[in-house]
Amino acid sequence: MRTKQQYIDSVMKLRRNIFCKGERISRDHEDLEMTLNVLGHTFEAAADPATADLCTAKSHLSGETINRFCHIHQNPQDLHKKQDMTRMLCRHVGYCIGRCMGADATNAVNSIAFEADKVNNGNTEYYKNFLKWLDNFQKNDYVLACAQTDTKGERMLRPSQQPDPDQYLRVVERKSDGIVVTGCKVHITQASVADEIMVVPTRAMTADEKDYAVAFAVPSDYDGVTQIVHPHNMNRRKHFKRGFDFGAVDSYVIFDKVFVPWDRVFLCGEHQHGGLAALLFALFHRHSYSGCKPAIGDVAIGLAALAAEVNGIEKTPHVKEKLASIIQIAELGYAAGYTASALSKPEVNIPGFGQVPFGPGSYIPNSIYCNVGRCLTGEAVFHEQEILCDIAGGVPATFPYEQDLVNPETKAYVDKYLKRNSKMPVEDQIKFWLYFSDMTVSAIAGSMNYASFHGGGSPIMEQIAITSQYDIKARKDMVKRLAGMS
Amino acid sequence: MRTKQQYIDSVMKLRRNIFCKGERISRDHEDLEMTLNVLGHTFEAAADPATADLCTAKSHLSGETINRFCHIHQNPQDLHKKQDMTRMLCRHVGYCIGRCMGADATNAVNSIAFEADKVNNGNTEYYKNFLKWLDNFQKNDYVLACAQTDTKGERMLRPSQQPDPDQYLRVVERKSDGIVVTGCKVHITQASVADEIMVVPTRAMTADEKDYAVAFAVPSDYDGVTQIVHPHNMNRRKHFKRGFDFGAVDSYVIFDKVFVPWDRVFLCGEHQHGGLAALLFALFHRHSYSGCKPAIGDVAIGLAALAAEVNGIEKTPHVKEKLASIIQIAELGYAAGYTASALSKPEVNIPGFGQVPFGPGSYIPNSIYCNVGRCLTGEAVFHEQEILCDIAGGVPATFPYEQDLVNPETKAYVDKYLKRNSKMPVEDQIKFWLYFSDMTVSAIAGSMNYASFHGGGSPIMEQIAITSQYDIKARKDMVKRLAGMS
Amino acid sequence: MRTKQQYIDSVMKLRRNIFCKGERISRDHEDLEMTLNVLGHTFEAAADPATADLCTAKSHLSGETINRFCHIHQNPQDLHKKQDMTRMLCRHVGYCIGRCMGADATNAVNSIAFEADKVNNGNTEYYKNFLKWLDNFQKNDYVLACAQTDTKGERMLRPSQQPDPDQYLRVVERKSDGIVVTGCKVHITQASVADEIMVVPTRAMTADEKDYAVAFAVPSDYDGVTQIVHPHNMNRRKHFKRGFDFGAVDSYVIFDKVFVPWDRVFLCGEHQHGGLAALLFALFHRHSYSGCKPAIGDVAIGLAALAAEVNGIEKTPHVKEKLASIIQIAELGYAAGYTASALSKPEVNIPGFGQVPFGPGSYIPNSIYCNVGRCLTGEAVFHEQEILCDIAGGVPATFPYEQDLVNPETKAYVDKYLKRNSKMPVEDQIKFWLYFSDMTVSAIAGSMNYASFHGGGSPIMEQIAITSQYDIKARKDMVKRLAGMS
Amino acid sequence: MRTKQQYIDSVMKLRRNIFCKGERISRDHEDLEMTLNVLGHTFEAAADPATADLCTAKSHLSGETINRFCHIHQNPQDLHKKQDMTRMLCRHVGYCIGRCMGADATNAVNSIAFEADKVNNGNTEYYKNFLKWLDNFQKNDYVLACAQTDTKGERMLRPSQQPDPDQYLRVVERKSDGIVVTGCKVHITQASVADEIMVVPTRAMTADEKDYAVAFAVPSDYDGVTQIVHPHNMNRRKHFKRGFDFGAVDSYVIFDKVFVPWDRVFLCGEHQHGGLAALLFALFHRHSYSGCKPAIGDVAIGLAALAAEVNGIEKTPHVKEKLASIIQIAELGYAAGYTASALSKPEVNIPGFGQVPFGPGSYIPNSIYCNVGRCLTGEAVFHEQEILCDIAGGVPATFPYEQDLVNPETKAYVDKYLKRNSKMPVEDQIKFWLYFSDMTVSAIAGSMNYASFHGGGSPIMEQIAITSQYDIKARKDMVKRLAGMS
Repeated sequence: MRTKQQYIDSVMKLRRNIFCKGERISRDHEDLEMTLNVLGHTFEAAADPATADLCTAKSHLSGETINRFCHIHQNPQDLHKKQDMTRMLCRHVGYCIGRCMGADATNAVNSIAFEADKVNNGNTEYYKNFLKWLDNFQKNDYVLACAQTDTKGERMLRPSQQPDPDQYLRVVERKSDGIVVTGCKVHITQASVADEIMVVPTRAMTADEKDYAVAFAVPSDYDGVTQIVHPHNMNRRKHFKRGFDFGAVDSYVIFDKVFVPWDRVFLCGEHQHGGLAALLFALFHRHSYSGCKPAIGDVAIGLAALAAEVNGIEKTPHVKEKLASIIQIAELGYAAGYTASALSKPEVNIPGFGQVPFGPGSYIPNSIYCNVGRCLTGEAVFHEQEILCDIAGGVPATFPYEQDLVNPETKAYVDKYLKRNSKMPVEDQIKFWLYFSDMTVSAIAGSMNYASFHGGGSPIMEQIAITSQYDIKARKDMVKRLAGMS
Repeated sequence: MRTKQQYIDSVMKLRRNIFCKGERISRDHEDLEMTLNVLGHTFEAAADPATADLCTAKSHLSGETINRFCHIHQNPQDLHKKQDMTRMLCRHVGYCIGRCMGADATNAVNSIAFEADKVNNGNTEYYKNFLKWLDNFQKNDYVLACAQTDTKGERMLRPSQQPDPDQYLRVVERKSDGIVVTGCKVHITQASVADEIMVVPTRAMTADEKDYAVAFAVPSDYDGVTQIVHPHNMNRRKHFKRGFDFGAVDSYVIFDKVFVPWDRVFLCGEHQHGGLAALLFALFHRHSYSGCKPAIGDVAIGLAALAAEVNGIEKTPHVKEKLASIIQIAELGYAAGYTASALSKPEVNIPGFGQVPFGPGSYIPNSIYCNVGRCLTGEAVFHEQEILCDIAGGVPATFPYEQDLVNPETKAYVDKYLKRNSKMPVEDQIKFWLYFSDMTVSAIAGSMNYASFHGGGSPIMEQIAITSQYDIKARKDMVKRLAGMS
Repeated sequence: MRTKQQYIDSVMKLRRNIFCKGERISRDHEDLEMTLNVLGHTFEAAADPATADLCTAKSHLSGETINRFCHIHQNPQDLHKKQDMTRMLCRHVGYCIGRCMGADATNAVNSIAFEADKVNNGNTEYYKNFLKWLDNFQKNDYVLACAQTDTKGERMLRPSQQPDPDQYLRVVERKSDGIVVTGCKVHITQASVADEIMVVPTRAMTADEKDYAVAFAVPSDYDGVTQIVHPHNMNRRKHFKRGFDFGAVDSYVIFDKVFVPWDRVFLCGEHQHGGLAALLFALFHRHSYSGCKPAIGDVAIGLAALAAEVNGIEKTPHVKEKLASIIQIAELGYAAGYTASALSKPEVNIPGFGQVPFGPGSYIPNSIYCNVGRCLTGEAVFHEQEILCDIAGGVPATFPYEQDLVNPETKAYVDKYLKRNSKMPVEDQIKFWLYFSDMTVSAIAGSMNYASFHGGGSPIMEQIAITSQYDIKARKDMVKRLAGMS
Repeated sequence: MRTKQQYIDSVMKLRRNIFCKGERISRDHEDLEMTLNVLGHTFEAAADPATADLCTAKSHLSGETINRFCHIHQNPQDLHKKQDMTRMLCRHVGYCIGRCMGADATNAVNSIAFEADKVNNGNTEYYKNFLKWLDNFQKNDYVLACAQTDTKGERMLRPSQQPDPDQYLRVVERKSDGIVVTGCKVHITQASVADEIMVVPTRAMTADEKDYAVAFAVPSDYDGVTQIVHPHNMNRRKHFKRGFDFGAVDSYVIFDKVFVPWDRVFLCGEHQHGGLAALLFALFHRHSYSGCKPAIGDVAIGLAALAAEVNGIEKTPHVKEKLASIIQIAELGYAAGYTASALSKPEVNIPGFGQVPFGPGSYIPNSIYCNVGRCLTGEAVFHEQEILCDIAGGVPATFPYEQDLVNPETKAYVDKYLKRNSKMPVEDQIKFWLYFSDMTVSAIAGSMNYASFHGGGSPIMEQIAITSQYDIKARKDMVKRLAGMS
């Protein structure tokens, strides 16, 4: 396994294929620094004996100890640990830990490549290719981004109906030694600071959309790959330092006639498996949300409880009711993930077919519980922000700038009038409100809300998954029996 | 184990201490018939090989096979099975199976009696008394009601402050051979058709409220016990028979100077254990709701899906969204109970102390997950009714009476104009809407809503449990660290 | 104007064309009695000097004083008074006053008949027919039901596409002296105790659906008209009398080859005006809801506040918050109606055309405000029931039967243990909970919820009206300007 | 009346008593520029013949035409026009127009000064002082900020109980020629760019809190007044210009032993009128929200509708449902204000006393309707943001920076992959998403949410106003009558 520094050193060597604020930038750009610290923590935690049990696993390929983010889940316990690792690490950095997409993509593709080969009767070697790639990936302890969401163009048209066929990433040429792909994947978190990028389809495909059913992995600075990035950083502090400065960075990842050799191709043309790949990555990723969302809930609980304490209202019934509401959401989200892990099997729930065996024996979390949990926590995002706003009052929106808090001409006024709770040092109250503002009224807070709502699939996507996979017929039959119907 | 008929026969022998609609009635009164069928099903299911695994257990006292409703949970698997049994049986009868209170009360008192003895240093024999009672209870396969909720009088006053001290049931006299109690327990479901009634306190007590900290069990027709009952029955059908006619019956159980011999007393005077008894029964009972509420959700899903099918709108997006909403609630409630079972321990979460070992080794479900689950499903009751109303339209409220559906003068009109879905026999459509009306716009539906909202503790009670037991301090500390506070 | 007794006497003379519980019944059937008292109150209030100003108007035809329910609105003040009359009368009877449908139907047809004649260039005499009918209607002080909702058959098919063409009421034959119609109108409140029934279309029609674009009025016992009724009555009390016993009755009104002479036909074949008739009746009726819904809100406020008082929790913050929520809904619903009245004009808002002059000069309330108000109060129905349930606790669902409250064997227990608030006589507490149960957990309460949710158009219908009529383009243009778009 | 330029020129002459980002700044600082443009528009609109009718009024003092923001409402029509002016101007600038606080404060103090004099039997001249000040204020066409919210210190303690008595602004010395005040008012919008500041109390006072019952006006750069400001600006654009760049600026306004001569003092020591001043300013201000909140709703409607159009989903049912939801909120908020204006009287609603005559005859909007409207729109803030997030998808959070949109190295990719709707120029789509991001995921959007939620009083404040002023007793009496209670 790598150290945090080894990871950063290796990222620094990547080709300058990133654009930000009108310039081609290096990965040592200050706007990427906070993000590197977030991802870097996944290496620290794996090395730390106190957290190593959750953060490492034994590779089923090599038998070596690897970072859990590189692991293929071998049993329900692996999924329990992945969930708990995710919650723990997100608590450490205060929001998204940013590395789960890799684990989720490799687990999805592991099953898909295996199954696609099966239907191809040995005419393809996707699974062999994938295992070779995976072994290297695990041994190098790589950070992997997953590029799923296409630009989609006209939303009511299918991929094959688009005026511009590149609005979904596709194979534009098949060669003897590989394929050529074109398209653009958007909202790809951490793609610019990842070692590699795994590409998977974004939706179900029809038989005439084979060119869109493609999965492969390439380095993040690969030839023909260009990234336009949007970093989200907490503003830098000079006087009132945070415990952790959080950052993340999203990319538009553009593939312009990118050549991918066959041994990096894990699916190409099997349209049904394309749709299943989209479903499976989403499923594993929603399981990850059963770890991160409760952690974000933990932060919200802490923010709400401290805001109430600073404001001196922590014992009022309406504050307790609001706290209970956030706790309820966080722990129901956790329970859904826990149950999904406990009921995991080497099976997938295919709409219309129910649970069917799937993949080489690796474990897939229960789909219904993953989806109801992610849907709940996704729908709660703005409700939680409202609670924080309600308890805090207007303070976060009008709080003086850091510099005014230390300016000798204003400091005495500030210290006198910002003091609400006489039992807490005013400096702590100041640090609290500054951090509260970071998490609620800053630009990064706005982006976090959108990420928390749409990331891993918007609530409407989970609703579609739920109603298409749930055994509604059994409930109808039950009611027919109770009602005395024939 | 008894048969359904043995149970009914035994109930019929009870003293006529029940009043209904102004009369003293026998337990063979037609208003109790549907309820007896509901409870009777718990005997049938235990005897049925297809369901025996969930519905029976091996007694840790006698080693014999007993009905699971009489069992003390010995491990997490017992709690998983109790949850799944409850969901299954509630599906069979279409609503509350009505026997869980006994299991929940015995499990609570089992731990309380044990712990109270411990602090009394051998001066009391509550646990010995209880085990003797329990052994008899299991061998006789009794139905047990649990009487917890007091009348409470002036709500803002404590028990000891009430103008009428009997507003909470209390010990009015202590004798050498037993105690005398007076008071009234309300909303006691199935008490009139139970073999025995277990009395437990309804709230936390102070040191001067020792007389209110009392737990004991007596036969449901015991001397001095009077019940005023309110049966809730589906209306009887003559022409369009249901698959199952559901009924339940609530009692005001009045104790008028009732003498209870010491060997039926399991707590008397230990005020702290009185509060814990209230907490523990509620906890076990909320765990039961993680079985029944998902089943009630299953019925709602079936009703909604069939109403949409009959109305020909089952493929519209807004119907799917609403179905997803009910599924989400039901399965999150289930997941919460599942997680509470899986994390169960011989421990209780005492506000201010956190998890502490408790009881003789029997398993207690995790409190946070029991409470968040029950709170969610409780809060959802009227939301689900709204969804049913929305999808059904006005039909259930104005549907012709059963007799008009068969009257030769009107039948042709009815058959012509009630036919909505041409693929379903009109008789099935009629039966469907009649049952839908039973579950939504009838008097029993109104009572069901109140039971589903308040039974096991209103949402506000779970919110109080959550905020008093959750480790909020850990979340505050986490935010302090992230914010850089001292 | 008639007296209440004259109205009842006249109804008693109607032909026995009503079926209930399998029998052909007279209008003196006890199940209709409470309803007759409700409608009868509209005559009492018009005669009472204290309420005559709101409840009467001066006919624009005869110049005579008439009941306001028979009036055509001549100015905004008429609409203000109609709203206030409706709220007042609904407060008097505790729920729906049941006569607004007549006012709403006559006002709609008044404009429709006028406009249809206009496009027919004098070839039809709908408006002349209508005015003649109206003059008679006003002079006789008739109660008018409005029959709008068709059975609709397969919901995703248009009227002309139905397997059974009678699923929407239609003209089956045109004769020189009149038309013959067949079909069935459902959920028609008070049709069985009305003097006359006005039939209007239920939806927009296409050019090939002319036979469905028909409006006319017939006596409620007319030849060929059969009604299957579903009465909703409060249960009769013997010992604890209410201040007012509320009842309503819904009909399936079946038209089996009914001949309607031309002078009772107000629209026949003008498909565009058919759709507008549906829209206009709904609009006037939603305006009526701005009177009745605030009154129902008033009842809910009173129930909630008294329940809190009886329970001794009226000063707790969560009760105040819930009271504020019901008040907010009621008064926003009122404000919407007030604004709709104040902005009324002899114009209608036609989707795609905006506001256009319409009708002979009578006033039509503003559509947007009518719809947003009705939608809000409709969506709130189950929310309000939840609040009532939350504040009341379990009492309403398990309250002893009236007879047990007076039975000498149980009365002492009842009086002792039902006493919660020591400042209120226990008899008043008993009457309160009995009435509370009437309004929440009884069969009639279930029907009321469905009526309050769907009556006048379900929330989804108002949402469709809002988005099809609102000037969304102006808001898009505004944002384009602010964003600097071309 | 002044021109926009005259206003700006005059503000530039103010003393440099403002601190921002650690520096003492002038009012020509670039961070105040957008705010000056917003306020400047109120002068432009008054001068523009197309908008002059709404934006001007005839002074009841001088008879001259004045800006309506300086006017005392003489009749309901004035309040209607104030509401409509506010909605119109907020539409022009895209958010808060920022000058209503002046109108609201002068109208409140106008009545308070008059009534305080009355109870003082001629011993004070508050009203005379106020009228003199008002005449000057109107003639100079001043912008007035209102400083109400105190720092409040320990929230559960009253002003007189605070460890630091200055946590509520108070009179620290009374002199023959005036008073000396100390304290700090927070979240004071536009105070730094106003000509004058009116100070009013923030809450009800007890008899021993006379020193806190004080109202007066001083220039915004007055001796002893220091402001620490927090500007909220849209980020500056270079390539894709907006139609209007919105900004606002909030102040901590610190009063450090400020001497106020008697002729600028409008209340000093009358504790009951202190509470009424707080109530009245809030009331007038909540009426202003019935203008601005519908305008903000208009922007949200436009944003949502255009986002749906750009995404090609404008015809889907769920988009229509969400649009209807925002429209409903905006127009119910408008209707509440409309009704409050129409029912305005020279009266105030005092909790416990109901409506009582108040002030010199100027008009005060109805309190219940002001409060239910403001509460609804305040509670809806995060719900509306959720709708915008839902319809937009992830685009706003990860949209490329402006510079990357024009960088020749990336422009071709951007233009290709940002094009969603083929009927709209990509430049317009870009401008749209940039503006959408401004209004949703930027720092200023975060502050806007807090302002929209808490400004004019948080929802909980309106709930308190509603329950303390509404005639709940009348509803209880009504239910008592219906229930047959004594």
